[in-house]
This record gives sequence, structure tokens and C-alpha cells, in this order.
Amino acid sequence: MVPRYSRPEMTAIWTPEARFRIWFEIEAHATEALAELGVVPKEAADALWTWWATNPTIDVAAIDAIEAVTKHDVIAFLTWVAEQVGDQARFMHQGMTSSDVLDTCLAVQLARASDILIADMDALLAVIRRRAEEHKLTPTIGRSHGIHAEPVTFGLKLAQAFAEFDRCRARLVAAKAEIATCAISGAVGTFANIDPRVEEHVAAKLGLAVEPVSTQVIPRDRHAMFFATLGVIASSIERLATEVRHLQRTEVLEAEEYFSPGQKGSSAMPHKRNPVLTENLTGLARMVRGYVTPALENVALWHERDISHSSVERYIAPDATITLDFALARLTGVIDKLLVYPERMQRNMDRMGGLIHSQRVLLALTQAGVSREDSYRLVQRNAMKVWESDGALSLNELLKNDPEVTAALSPEAIDAEFDLGYHHKHVDTIFARVFG
Amino acid sequence: MVPRYSRPEMTAIWTPEARFRIWFEIEAHATEALAELGVVPKEAADALWTWWATNPTIDVAAIDAIEAVTKHDVIAFLTWVAEQVGDQARFMHQGMTSSDVLDTCLAVQLARASDILIADMDALLAVIRRRAEEHKLTPTIGRSHGIHAEPVTFGLKLAQAFAEFDRCRARLVAAKAEIATCAISGAVGTFANIDPRVEEHVAAKLGLAVEPVSTQVIPRDRHAMFFATLGVIASSIERLATEVRHLQRTEVLEAEEYFSPGQKGSSAMPHKRNPVLTENLTGLARMVRGYVTPALENVALWHERDISHSSVERYIAPDATITLDFALARLTGVIDKLLVYPERMQRNMDRMGGLIHSQRVLLALTQAGVSREDSYRLVQRNAMKVWESDGALSLNELLKNDPEVTAALSPEAIDAEFDLGYHHKHVDTIFARVFG
Amino acid sequence: MVPRYSRPEMTAIWTPEARFRIWFEIEAHATEALAELGVVPKEAADALWTWWATNPTIDVAAIDAIEAVTKHDVIAFLTWVAEQVGDQARFMHQGMTSSDVLDTCLAVQLARASDILIADMDALLAVIRRRAEEHKLTPTIGRSHGIHAEPVTFGLKLAQAFAEFDRCRARLVAAKAEIATCAISGAVGTFANIDPRVEEHVAAKLGLAVEPVSTQVIPRDRHAMFFATLGVIASSIERLATEVRHLQRTEVLEAEEYFSPGQKGSSAMPHKRNPVLTENLTGLARMVRGYVTPALENVALWHERDISHSSVERYIAPDATITLDFALARLTGVIDKLLVYPERMQRNMDRMGGLIHSQRVLLALTQAGVSREDSYRLVQRNAMKVWESDGALSLNELLKNDPEVTAALSPEAIDAEFDLGYHHKHVDTIFARVFG
Amino acid sequence: MVPRYSRPEMTAIWTPEARFRIWFEIEAHATEALAELGVVPKEAADALWTWWATNPTIDVAAIDAIEAVTKHDVIAFLTWVAEQVGDQARFMHQGMTSSDVLDTCLAVQLARASDILIADMDALLAVIRRRAEEHKLTPTIGRSHGIHAEPVTFGLKLAQAFAEFDRCRARLVAAKAEIATCAISGAVGTFANIDPRVEEHVAAKLGLAVEPVSTQVIPRDRHAMFFATLGVIASSIERLATEVRHLQRTEVLEAEEYFSPGQKGSSAMPHKRNPVLTENLTGLARMVRGYVTPALENVALWHERDISHSSVERYIAPDATITLDFALARLTGVIDKLLVYPERMQRNMDRMGGLIHSQRVLLALTQAGVSREDSYRLVQRNAMKVWESDGALSLNELLKNDPEVTAALSPEAIDAEFDLGYHHKHVDTIFARVFG
Repeated sequence: MVPRYSRPEMTAIWTPEARFRIWFEIEAHATEALAELGVVPKEAADALWTWWATNPTIDVAAIDAIEAVTKHDVIAFLTWVAEQVGDQARFMHQGMTSSDVLDTCLAVQLARASDILIADMDALLAVIRRRAEEHKLTPTIGRSHGIHAEPVTFGLKLAQAFAEFDRCRARLVAAKAEIATCAISGAVGTFANIDPRVEEHVAAKLGLAVEPVSTQVIPRDRHAMFFATLGVIASSIERLATEVRHLQRTEVLEAEEYFSPGQKGSSAMPHKRNPVLTENLTGLARMVRGYVTPALENVALWHERDISHSSVERYIAPDATITLDFALARLTGVIDKLLVYPERMQRNMDRMGGLIHSQRVLLALTQAGVSREDSYRLVQRNAMKVWESDGALSLNELLKNDPEVTAALSPEAIDAEFDLGYHHKHVDTIFARVFG
Repeated sequence: MVPRYSRPEMTAIWTPEARFRIWFEIEAHATEALAELGVVPKEAADALWTWWATNPTIDVAAIDAIEAVTKHDVIAFLTWVAEQVGDQARFMHQGMTSSDVLDTCLAVQLARASDILIADMDALLAVIRRRAEEHKLTPTIGRSHGIHAEPVTFGLKLAQAFAEFDRCRARLVAAKAEIATCAISGAVGTFANIDPRVEEHVAAKLGLAVEPVSTQVIPRDRHAMFFATLGVIASSIERLATEVRHLQRTEVLEAEEYFSPGQKGSSAMPHKRNPVLTENLTGLARMVRGYVTPALENVALWHERDISHSSVERYIAPDATITLDFALARLTGVIDKLLVYPERMQRNMDRMGGLIHSQRVLLALTQAGVSREDSYRLVQRNAMKVWESDGALSLNELLKNDPEVTAALSPEAIDAEFDLGYHHKHVDTIFARVFG
Repeated sequence: MVPRYSRPEMTAIWTPEARFRIWFEIEAHATEALAELGVVPKEAADALWTWWATNPTIDVAAIDAIEAVTKHDVIAFLTWVAEQVGDQARFMHQGMTSSDVLDTCLAVQLARASDILIADMDALLAVIRRRAEEHKLTPTIGRSHGIHAEPVTFGLKLAQAFAEFDRCRARLVAAKAEIATCAISGAVGTFANIDPRVEEHVAAKLGLAVEPVSTQVIPRDRHAMFFATLGVIASSIERLATEVRHLQRTEVLEAEEYFSPGQKGSSAMPHKRNPVLTENLTGLARMVRGYVTPALENVALWHERDISHSSVERYIAPDATITLDFALARLTGVIDKLLVYPERMQRNMDRMGGLIHSQRVLLALTQAGVSREDSYRLVQRNAMKVWESDGALSLNELLKNDPEVTAALSPEAIDAEFDLGYHHKHVDTIFARVFG
Repeated sequence: MVPRYSRPEMTAIWTPEARFRIWFEIEAHATEALAELGVVPKEAADALWTWWATNPTIDVAAIDAIEAVTKHDVIAFLTWVAEQVGDQARFMHQGMTSSDVLDTCLAVQLARASDILIADMDALLAVIRRRAEEHKLTPTIGRSHGIHAEPVTFGLKLAQAFAEFDRCRARLVAAKAEIATCAISGAVGTFANIDPRVEEHVAAKLGLAVEPVSTQVIPRDRHAMFFATLGVIASSIERLATEVRHLQRTEVLEAEEYFSPGQKGSSAMPHKRNPVLTENLTGLARMVRGYVTPALENVALWHERDISHSSVERYIAPDATITLDFALARLTGVIDKLLVYPERMQRNMDRMGGLIHSQRVLLALTQAGVSREDSYRLVQRNAMKVWESDGALSLNELLKNDPEVTAALSPEAIDAEFDLGYHHKHVDTIFARVFG
């Protein structure tokens, strides 16, 4: 976890205290169920919840000190709780194995992290939607291969981003469902020493599903799918970040990250305004993606379980969720405050002497009866002159002076092919598809 | 594509001929829609379908020869079709861009590949289920960390695999839905030169959804999610393959890949019977996982599109689907014919002198009023003797000779803790959860 | 292997025939050594070489047919050779294990592939050097964060690329040394049935080093290092390709991939000239990088060996070397024929009204006694005006009209800070460092 | 960074204080060189070093407080130093850019981290060598595919590990050389405002090479190569860890991680002794490998630089080096104290009724004039009986009772093929190759 790329709400999930609090809840709910089943006295569960109702502080240092002796984290925790609660606490953890607590706790943490990420996504979607509607009909050039292609609108670019992140939101909901399961099934998952109804009770209380079959551990294909999904989302973040980086390039400058009055872009070069937030997002995306492969390698545990996955998860469970949360929030801020320059968009679009309308002329010639091959040749020979003039010549003018062209198209017909509105006629359709 | 790791049905999807056939269908359906909209003559669509009804052979070499001149694959294809169909063919592709054909074709190919993979998965699930039921109560040792833990059944191991691949099946269905979309939206996705109803028509005919907003290309977050899902499934394959590899180890030998009468395990060592199929599956899993990261890197295309994703997909679209199809089928064969040795399972379970019952004795002592710490100490001191004897001593016997133990537990009470059936009492519950 | 991204010389290394030829050489050299040691008759080795001297065709289909029966590739090959050579052939392979042949063959193939890649690199370096010298003093703007920073020369950009690929060349030489080892050590590497001198002899004949200790197989950390190195080189290819893609963007257009007279950039848009080669290189780089992780996962084979690495290598050994060879050659062609537009570079550099000299003015003010804070403030306030005018205003002019600036610097002093040559004074030094 | 997987010496390199100390040294050495060149007063450098000689505490909180205002870390640092040193400090950083400090600092940190890793490797190599010599002739079975193959010695296993880590050491030395370069070349690497001799001076003082050509930043192919090398080393760690995990399996138990007297293997199962350290190493290897791809993706920065690499390096530079340092030390401890059970090795080797000698009998039959096919058949038919008896039958006995075998080999000749020493005759040769 890199502090500068983290936010407190997500980071809080991964503190020792938060983990111990979840452990307690798991143990207390389990004791409750055991009491209902008559396995332990009802007083045991009562004693736990009574203490919990005092909203006790978790003494992480004290628990760590016990662990330094016992070399076992769950035992250390249980020992400390017993010191606080008293004799009734000895009924805690009856028939359970450490992994029951650890894996169910991880499920709770990842589910909570998912909720934050989903809320992040909602905030991002709201901002993209607002900016998309604001620029629904702001003309700008569409680019394929970094080269001017045909006109679009800036709103369409954002509508695409909205649709992509809306898909990411659905994936996140699915990913949460993957990992939100509870396992309290004992040393090898047979419930030999604990009734399956305990698992059902704890699951219901914690908002988790029951793991149908566990083997001391919850199977790691679930976590692999979770982290793979985060990797996809990170890649979508990179896509939108890359778009902003391109738009802010000196020669393009159609949009810019917000630059506050007192800000310095460079200590050495006072003229600089750099897209550092979106560059940073590009790097963060690499990290979240980098956690996918270790998560995939965690799936093939040996037999009922080995513990190789554990160290991996100590890194990637906090790092992937904290980094992605930060990245989503940062991207939301970037889009929210993005400086958009419609005049510059228009100027860039105009700078190629009308070349961006070449396809329409081609189609018009074809429809006027010229063969496709001839049409292509006619348009290309004029287009190449404009290209070589770097936009100083006008395609419209050249076409009107090309007798082979004018033999098929009148000047008015040619002008009609240079109308920008033509390209916007289905913007409503697309917006309706995307925003409903 | 490595021929020895491929099967004909999946490979057929990725041949040039298959691709050209899908191209034709896209173009013909589009022409049909254009005719309905009055953009092109109805005769144009009729001419295409009339020719198609003759079930023509696709002359790949002829198309390639044209491409060698035009340097453009879609144009070469259209030219060849026009040569076959005649004059009416000139209305094909009206207002479309090459990517409309290429991306929609890829969607069809990946959707078909998904269907094969789903069928593969169903076959695998059926086989696992059959073997699980066959060995529902075959006792075997559960192992954590490669070390004997407590008894399970071989059926439970397979039930876990079933549940895991059942999740993989659901993921595959979701992954298919991700990529099964149709885009016919023109050079930058604005439908400037083609009505959105064409897209709707083609999508419906091909069993695809409409892409809500495309930008010449279908957004690559969809494909990233698809290939990431294949990577997860490959990892689950590796898990079950690893289980078989472990079970076949000389010292364990509880199960074995089928070994046909005349087979040679090694040219040099006539005694060898190696788990080469599951080792192979382990390697194939690495490859399918290796395609995830390139797919993730494909997401952040520049602006409306660049073509960097294309070369990646020429490798991974065939390679990932062909390899996974082969791997699923191979795994199905391995499980189907797996030689299972229940006697050996029992013998292995017995070889540690009853240590695997240590937890039950611990719990019994606790319930008999001995403190947890003392109980642990009593069991551990006897268990370590058994451990050091390498199973020559019996935990049951030692406990009965330990006065501190017998002070709390009668010999009969001790015997009761060594009952294997105790561990199987919830097998029905778990099977009901997994198999319904 | 994707045919369109492959070149014949590299592909030839990976054909079945090439593999069988190497197998023969290994077997024949080994038989020769065994004869020298008196283990087999000298006639056996002679018979093999005599047959080989006839330059026989390798009948791949015949060998495959035998393998279909024996299910063992090396045995099938030996059988076929024996059919050709006659009775003396029975002494071949004495005391050897299949892996001795397979792993040593892979070493030969990878070493030959390395030689081709090194030659590719030499060709690329020569071209970069030529273009670097050609544009040693062609002024162009240096960009950080995609934003104009300060002037460089186009030759410096290429000098950087040269230095980077020169490092890649050295890495490739090291990578070749990693994998160019010979192992002929028997079933578990103990030389139990074959004298180590056989290995030494074969190694020397094939230009390989002796593997100090093998375990049936050559250890896979060697191959991991090899493929990791290819991944680094691919990333450097991506860097230079990305530079070209940026330079060709419509608004930048300082350089362009060569565009042949009859070429069509787009079937729909006749005006397009797209950087498709370098976009393609970006995708190819993703693939070569994607092979790194499977190679790393191949290292941890079980005990003396398992065969999980084998399937991985059947994919990545050809695919990584063939793709990288193609990519290096394609990049060489791109740089060789790159269209460079110095006027456009100058125009772009000028378009920001002299902002790129802001640092020099800042330093001049500081040296003239103004505090750093004040200097920054003075320059920034004028720079921001230029920025907001989109380069219509001139920084030089504004500074000369700012009394706080002119209080410290004379107009002549200001002019002196706008001299481009200032930035080129160490180009010779850098070129000397890079090109020697 | 996960505290439990970190060691203080390596962690110390990555603290803010350590970073600031290196920054100071870079700035002070640079000022010194600038003074020698007459660019700044000699008193400026003297003032810096005089203050440094007082061994001042770096007040990280104070620097952070300044950064909170300036939003620029290097400026904040310079401001704080100036407050301590006084007026002469204003000559610091003359003509430098922040990246000069940041990138050179990273080089120093990675070089120091490399030194620790090399020392770790030396410690590991020493331990492996000691244990290898201790068990040079301890007989144990070699396994391919997890199946008994032929005898080796435990020392040979360790000799292989030694050779592998010795290669890793050489790779680490090469990796250090890759990243140990100094760049002080200004905003775009042209030395426009700073003489190249400053760079040379600082490089020499810090034990770095001069970066031949930089572009504000040191090129990231260097770092990619560095982290890729760490990924290879991690994979070798995984290999040896996996070997230990296999050897400790209940049914194998030929070696065990050291288990201290009071240790508890499981809270629930008092009999457990799990290979948790080597399982942990397996997980840590996944993490270090996971950092390779982000490092590769960092290479293709835009133009002279973008800052996307920076966030990646904030994660992986500490995490990869700290984790690998911890892993190497942990592995060293595991091997140092590994419990090795030669009797169990012998017993396991014997459990297959002599099958492991099948190849030798095969060769003996062949040499006695039986055809290879017949020899194979004779050995296999007896071997399969032994296999099916699970080692209860003896291959030696069965062969002596097979008339077709005894027709070719006398009982004494058969016995001779079951001699273990036969397999050890080249151990000296291999040890000489590995240990010199």
C-alpha cells in the first residue's frame, strides 16, 4: 500500500483492528448458532455480545504480544478476547478451524471493498454522464490510428466511456457475488465437528452466501475471478486516462486536466501544464493489472489446501482494492473538472482542409453513378494535394475544380457533403441506447 | 496454434474459410436490411442469398491473390464475391467500414467458440458428477499443506471440483454475453452513412446483441473480460490436474491416469507410469493464463481506435480458445478413465497410526473438562511419539496408556473418537448443496 | 505462429525437419564419442556419418507414421534412421534418455534463433545510426508528458533509441549464453549409463557449453531468463514504435511511416495515412511480453523434472522468436524509410510563442540577482498569457514589455535566451558517448 | 510492503529519510562539481558539506509540511536544506531538473538493494554448499513426473540448486550494472543548462556509471531488465521451495522444515507439522514475478518521458526488493536447518521392489545380445508385476525366475545391476563442475 495512492475509507477495511472486529463478529455469530443448537450454553453467546455492546477498543498491540508467544494469530485473538469477556469465552470457536475465521473475514473485507468500489463507480458514472450531456453536440474530430477520421461529438466520446464503465459496474457486482461466501466447515470442510447450520447462520448475519463445498478454505477460483475483474476495470481506467493525455498534448490541446491558480507544472519550466493525474492513472492501472496473474496462480492449491495463497493475498487484497478505489476517485475528479476547449476542437477539425469529409464525397460520387474505383481515385488525388499542403488547400475547392468530379456532382452537391450536422443525426439514438 | 493441442471443431472456427463465410453472412444480412430501408435495390440482397443457396465453395486462394494486389482483406473479399454474384453485388457494404465486418465476425467466432467451450464444460461436469457419486463414500485422507489432516471422501474431492467447474460454466456464459455484440456503425461509430436499423437487423440474424456505442471498433474491455475468464478457467483446470498429479506420485498412488496395455511410460525405464496428461494440462493452463495480460493491454486503444489490438487477437483468439477446448476435453478424459485405488487410500490413511484423529481426542478431552491447553499438551505428546515412529506406534494405544488421558476418558470413549463414519455424516448435505 | 508475422529464416528453425536434423547430429556426435570411448564400435558412428554425407531427405511423414504406433517421438525417429542406415544404427542412443536429445536440440534451436535476432539487431542499429547522423542537428521539440518542454534534435531521439537497442543487443548475447548448453546425462542426470565425456564431445561439436548439472532436463531458469530478455526487447520496440505513432498524429505530423504511391490507408476514407506498422509493432510487443510469465512459471518443475514445461515451450519457443524477429525487421524498415519533416518540427516548436525558452529566462533572471521565487513568478505570469493565447502572443515580446523583467534583463539579454543553438552544444558529447 | 515479509536493512533503503539523504549527496556532489567548473562559488559546496559533517537529522515531517504547500517534493527538500544551511544553499540544484535527483537516487537505492540481495545470495549459496557436501553421497531416489526414476544423491539435488542460484547471482550482478547509472542532464537530457562533467563527477562519487543519453529520465528498459531478473530469481526460489514441500509430504517425508520444540502446526490438529515456510516462499515468488509485467509496461514512455512509470516504481521498487530479500533469507534458513531423513530416503527407494533398476537390466539384456524390443518386453512384464504388487514382490527375484531372462543373464549378473553405487560414480565429476 502506497499512502499517497490510498483513501481512508478503503484503507480502514484492511487495518488489523477492522480485521479483529470482523473476527469477533464471526466468532460471536457462530457461538450464537452453537448455543441455539445446544452445543454450547446460551450464556456464552450472551457474554460475547454483552461485551461487544460496550463498544470495546481492540487492543491490537496486546493481541500482537500474545501472538509473539503463541505464533498463531487466531489463537492470540481468542486468548485476548477471553481475557476481556471472561470464562464464558471458552466456548468460542468450538469445532471451528482458523481458516473458517480467516476466509470468512476475507470475504467480508472484499465484499465491503466491493461496495466502496461500486459507489466509486456510481460517482464516476454520474460525472461522465453530466459531462456527456453537457457536450452532447460539441463537435470534435474522431480519430482512428491517431489520424483524423470523421467528425463525432465530445459527448459521444463520453457516452462510450459511460457505457464501458457501466459494464465495469455490472462486472463489479458479479465479482462481489463471487467472493461473498461464508465457510465454517472445519479442518477439511466435512463439518465433522461443527453443524452446517452454524455456517448458514453466520452467512445470513454477515450478508454472505454459504460456500457449497469448502476444503478448510474457500476455493480460490473465486478470488481469481475477483482480481481479474479489477484488472479489467483498471484497463478501462487506463483507456479514458489515455484519451485525456492525448487531448492535452500541446499540438492537440482540446481538453486539459484542471490546473489550479497557484499550481506549478514544473520546477524548471514555468510554462508547463502536464496531464500528471492521468499519467499517474496509467501507472496505477499497470499495478492493478499486475495483481491478476498472482491471483490466477493462487487457484491451484495442493489437495484440500496449502497456504501459498495467503502471502499473495496479504499484498494484493489491500493493494488492488485500495489502488483501484483511489484511481476511480481520481478519474472522477479529472472528468468532473476537465477543462474542455470546443473552439480548439473546431480549429483542429478544420486544419486538414476538409479531408475528413472525403468518405462522403466518395459515397456521393458512387451514388451518382461513378464506379467505386474511379470515385476512390478522384477523391484520393485531390485529398493527397490537401494532405501535402498540410491543410492550406481546401478539399471542397479542389473538388469543385476537378472536371471529372464536377461531371458527376454539382457545386451544391459537393457543398452538401461538407455539412457537419450530417454526422450528428444519430447522436440521440446512441444516447438513448447508453443512458436509457 | 499447436496442432497436437487442438481439436477439429474448434480449429474450424478459425480457418480463413470460416471467417469468409461469416463475412458473407454479415454483408448479406446488411444488404437485406439496406434493401428494406430502400437504400439499395431488393434485387441486390436477393442476388447474394440466391448465390449463397448454391452452397458455394469459398476460394481462399483466389481471395488471397486479390489481397496481394489490393493490400486490403475486406476489399479483396468483396471483389471476389462480386465476381461470383455479378453486378448486384456492388450494393454490398454500402456505408459500412471494414471494422464493421471484422469486429462483428470476431464476435460470431468467439460466440461459437464459447458454445463449444460450454459444451465441453457440460461434458466435464457430467463425468465429474458420475465419478463423484461413484466415490461418494470412498474414504480418503484430506490433506492440508500436503500433510494428512482429517478424513474426507474421494467423492467430496470431486464434488468440490464439480462446484468449481459449475462456477466456471456460469462465468463462461457471462463471458459469451460480453463479446456477443454486433457493430455496424461506420468509420467512427456515428452511423453517419448507415442507419442503426441495419445493425439491429444483422445482430438479430446472427444471434448477437447490438453494441450500444462503438467507435469503429467494439470496445476491447469486452474481449479483456472474455480472455480473463478463460484464464480463470485454465487455473481451475490446473487445480484438478495438480490433484491427479499428486495422487499418482509413487508414494501416494491413490489414483492414476489410465494406462493402456501397450503403452510405454519411458523409453529407458520400463517401470514408469507417469501422469503426463495432467502435467500437460498444467502447461496448457500457463499458456491460457499468459494470454490474459495482452488482452488487458488491448483495452486502452487510442481515441476512437488504433489497430494494435488486431495482431494480439490474431494470436490469442484462436490460441486461447483452441487450447482451452483441448484442455477441457483432455481433463474430461482423464477423470472419466481415472484409475482409483480405494485400498491404497485406506492404507495411506492408516499409515500414521491414527494421528488423523488427534483433533477429535482434543475436543473430547476439552468436553470432559480438561483445559484446552492441557488437552493440546496431552494429545501432542502422544502424537509426537507416533509421528516419530513413522506410524509404527498407534495413537489410540498410547492414549489408553497415558494416565492423564485416561483420567478423563475411558478406553471406550477413546475408541469412539477413532470412528471414520463420524467424518462422513454431512456428505449428503454437501452433495445436496453441490448437485441439487 | 501467425504466418503474416513471420519470416522464413526464423520459421525454418522450428520445422519438424529442422528438429530431426538436429536430433541426428546430436545422436551421431554422441555415437562418435561412444566409439572413441570403446563403448560402441567405431563402425556405428561411421555408418551414421556416411549416410548423412548423402544429404538425405528427412521423411517427416514416415517418422510421424511410426510415432502414431510407438507414441514416442524419439523412438520413432531412431527407428526411421535405423531403417535408412541399417544394422549399425542399433548402437545409437546408447545410455541416453530422450530428454538428452530434446533439451540439447532446443538449445541448438534457441541459439540459432538468437543468432538471427542478433543479426536483426545489428541491422536495426545500423539503420538507426544512419538516420541519427542524418538528423544529428535537426531541431525538434523535446516533450515531457506530451507537452512541449525544451528543444532537442531528432538525432538525439534516435541516439537514445540506438543506445537502448545496443543494450538490448548485449542482453541478447547474454541470453544466448544462458540457453546454449548441452545435456547428455541420462535419466536423472547422474551419467549412470553414459560417460560425461560424451556430453563434452557433443557440446563442443554443436558450439554449446556443457550443462554443469542436469536432472534429465536442463534447468528452466535458463529459459526463463531467455524469454524474459525477449520481453524486455519487445518493450523497447514498443517504445520506439510509440514514438513514431505520436509523431505521425495529424496535429503533430513530424514524421510518417513510408506510404507507397498506390497504397490505400482506408477503404472508406481516401485521405488516411495511418501508422499501421508501428501500431502493429505495439501489439506484437504485447505478445512477446505475454510469453514471459509462462516461461517463469516453467522454472519450478517437480523434483528432477515434470513435463509441464514442454507444452509451454511448443508454443512460446517458436512464437516468441518468430514474432520478435519479424518485429525487429519491421521496425528496421520503418526507421529506414521513415519520412521526416524538419519544417514541421520547426513549426510545431514555434507554435507556442517561445514558451519553450521559459526555463532559460528563469535562470537568467536568477543569475541577474532576482530571487528564484520572484523569477518564477515573473516568467510564469508572462508564460500563462502566451499559453492562453495559444501561441499567438510571443513570450519574448511580453517579457520585453514587463518592467519587472526589464529591470533585470536588457532586451539583448532577453533575446540571447531564445537562441536554439544553446540547446545543441552538447550533442557532440552525447553522440560520442553513444556511437563511440 | 507487508511488514511480516520484510527485513530492516532492506526496508531502510526505502524510507523517506534514506531517500532524502541520497538526494542531499547528489545535490552536494553536483554543487561541488559546479564549483570546480566555476559556475557557483566554492563556498556553496563547502557550506553544504560542512553542515552534512554535523550528521544532521533529516526532519521528514518538516519537509512534508513544506511539500504540502509547494506540491513539489524536490523543491520542498531544497527549501528545507536551505533553511538549515543558510544562504549558500541557493546555489544548489543549479541547472538541474527534479528527475536528475529522483532518477539518480533510484539508481543508488536499487544498487544498494542489489548489494543486499547479492549478499543474501552468497549466504544462501554457502548454506546450500554445506548441506550438499554433507549429503554428497546420501542415496535418494530421483523422480521424474513425481514417479520414482533412478537413484541420485541428496547432495546432487542440492548441487543442482547451488548451480541454479549461482547463475542467479551472476544475473543479479548484471542486473545491478543495468540500473546503476547516473543522469544529471537537465529537462530533456541535452545538458543545455548543466555541463556533462557534473554528471561524471556525481556518478564517480556515488559509484555509478554515467548514463550515455538520458531524456530527463534514465531509460526504463534498464529497470525492466532489473525487475525481470528478480522475477527469474523468485522462480528459482519457488523451485527449491517446491522440492522441500514435496519431500515433507506425509507419504514421502524425506526431509522437513525445522520444527521447534514448542511449535504448534495447527490449532485444531496437534499432530501437524506443515511446510509453511516453503509454501509461503511459493506465494512470495508469485508476487515478485507479478511485478515483472508492470516493469515491462513502463518501458514505452511517451517521447522524452511521461510520469506513468513513477507510481509503478513507488510500489514495485520497495516491494520487489524487500520481498525478495526476505524470501532469500527465509530460504537460507530453511535449507540451513532442514531436517533430512536418510533412512526414510532409503526406505522409500526400496518400496518399489527394485523397479528403479529396470533400465539397467534392460541395458544388460541388450548388451547380452537380446534385441531392444525383446529386452523391453521382458523387463516390462516383470516390472508390471512388481508395480501391481505395490512393491511387495521383488524385481530381482522375479527376473531370476524368468527363464527368458536367465537365458541371457546369470543370477550374479542380475544382482550386479541392482548395485546402488553404480549410480554414484560420477558424483565427484558433477561436484567438481558445480563447486570448482
